[in-house]
Order: sequence, then C-alpha cells, then structure tokens
Amino acid sequence: MTATPGRVVWFTGLSGAGKSTLASALYERLSAQGERVELLDGDAVRENLSRGLGFSKADRDTNVRRIAFVAGLLARHGVTVLVSAISPYRGTRDEVLAGLPNPVEVFVDAPLSVVTDRDVKGLYLKALAGEIEHFTGVSDPYEAPLAPDLHLRTDRKTVEVCLTELLEHLGVRDVANA
Amino acid sequence: MTATPGRVVWFTGLSGAGKSTLASALYERLSAQGERVELLDGDAVRENLSRGLGFSKADRDTNVRRIAFVAGLLARHGVTVLVSAISPYRGTRDEVLAGLPNPVEVFVDAPLSVVTDRDVKGLYLKALAGEIEHFTGVSDPYEAPLAPDLHLRTDRKTVEVCLTELLEHLGVRDVANA
Repeated sequence: MTATPGRVVWFTGLSGAGKSTLASALYERLSAQGERVELLDGDAVRENLSRGLGFSKADRDTNVRRIAFVAGLLARHGVTVLVSAISPYRGTRDEVLAGLPNPVEVFVDAPLSVVTDRDVKGLYLKALAGEIEHFTGVSDPYEAPLAPDLHLRTDRKTVEVCLTELLEHLGVRDVANA
Repeated sequence: MTATPGRVVWFTGLSGAGKSTLASALYERLSAQGERVELLDGDAVRENLSRGLGFSKADRDTNVRRIAFVAGLLARHGVTVLVSAISPYRGTRDEVLAGLPNPVEVFVDAPLSVVTDRDVKGLYLKALAGEIEHFTGVSDPYEAPLAPDLHLRTDRKTVEVCLTELLEHLGVRDVANA
C-alpha cells in the first residue's frame, strides 16, 4: 500500500456528452506531466469485466460497481484513475464514489437535443426509432448529479476550456499553458 | 504509467493446497518491507467481478481473464500483484500469464489425498459425495503447470520454508531472517 493515495475522477453523463473526449484529454495531459494515471473507459471495461451483462438497472449497477472496485484498487496504490462511464443512476454513483479515495464527480453535461444532434455513434437515431432498448436519455433514465464537484457544459465550452477547469479543480499546474 | 513495472505472482493449485496461505504470508512480508503489493484472492474477486458466473470451463476462464485484467492494470503501475486462484486450465493460465508484466507462476502443490484429508472448508467431503458439481480435482479437471517458475510441495514443506523459497525466487532480501 502506498503512502500517497491517488484519486478517482469520475466522468458521468449521457452518451455523446463528451466524457471520453475529456477523460482522454486529461489523461494525455497528466501522463505528459509524469503523473501515474489510468483511464477506465466504460465500454472497454464492459468488454473486459462485464461481458454478458445487459442494460437493466441491476446490470448497469453491477457494471458501475465493478468499475469502482478496480478504480479503488488502483487509486489506493497512488494512481489517478479517470473513469468515463454513463453511470446513470444517482444512488449507485453516490454509493460507489463514497467508497473511493479522493473522488471527484464530473458531470459532463450537454442537453439531449445537442447529443442527439451530434449522434457521434449513430445510436440516438436508432434509439429514437425504437431499435435500441434501454438507451439512456431516450428509453432509460439519466439521473443527473445534484451537486457534482465539477459541472461542465460541453455545448457551451470548448474541450480546451473544460480541460483547464478540470486541471484547476484538480490543483494540477497547467504546464502547457503556463 | 510508472517507469518501474511491477510483477504478478500467480498462485495456482487445488482448493486447500495452500495458495491463499502462502499468498497472504508473502503479502504480509512484502508489505512490511514497504513494497507496493496487492492480493487478489480468487474468492474475493469472484464476489466483486464475477458474481453470476458459475464453474463451467467458459465461466472459470472468464473469471481468470478478469483477474488477469485487473492484475495487469495494477502491475503496470508498479504494484506487485499476488493472485491466488485455482485457475485449473493450463491453456488459459498460460495465455493470461503471457500478457502480464513479469509473471511468476507458482504451483502450490499437494496431492489430492492430502487436500482431501485437510478439507479446510469441508468441501471435498461434499464434492466426493456428489453434492457439488464442477469441483476441481474431484469432478472437474486440474491441469498442473508443466514448467512453473516455482513448484512448492506444501505437503512436504512448512509455510515458512515455502515463503523463504518465494522470497529467494523474487529476489527479495528476507529482512526478517537476515
């Protein structure tokens, strides 16, 4: 066990809101500055830890708890862990964040109309056409954080501005823009 | 990502052979010496990452791959990871170990007659009575390593002797007995 605990930065929000984009940008910046950092992306983790789970509330919660379990292991060994996962249920999010060292909840927020317009993966069109069940924001709920540590409106701010806010919140000196 | 990769010490063997006992003893010793070390116990990991999986070959393999995924994440951040898991299938074990940084395969070996006699958890009696399906060594195969990095016969050596061999193999100075 390391003497200096890490932290977990948890990006939550709708599909297409920009979670992975921001988490990746933060990962690159922190890595470049020599920080021990790991990115746990919801989709990748699902592939490695939760294949076979679906998108019911119970299955989504199980997936979120598994991500949190792994994030906690890494953070307790001094790693800064960036989690990018829709994690739509407030109660489950609150519960797992409370069990993690130095948790930072980041609400990556863009209105449904905007993410539907973006439709990065072409999924909203299918979901709105009823071709995908349990699609967060369309046929499944998204419970927004009531008091996130950081609330980033990605329809109003650029990635670079959001990243600067993230770095400031984390107390990381922004070397690139110093 | 850390500059000094960790390693994964993988304890495989029958239930009751002494995997967890040795892994715990090693964990205590390495922790006391200030090493960053994590113990992933098969049963605990199953609870956190694989609830719902059974004991078919496919499910056991999935469980082993999940443990390896987590072990790899930790090891790549400089942690010494001790895995204690029956992991009965040679092919799967070989495959996951090949993907891990600095893997050490430890075959914790005691004959079936000995572990059946010990029957620490009272499971062999039930398995032999046909009350448990898919019980490794009784109604499910255990494929022993052909060339483990370390082969510890726990029916012939004490825990302390096995631990000394482990520390020697890992190149750890045995402070307690120096």
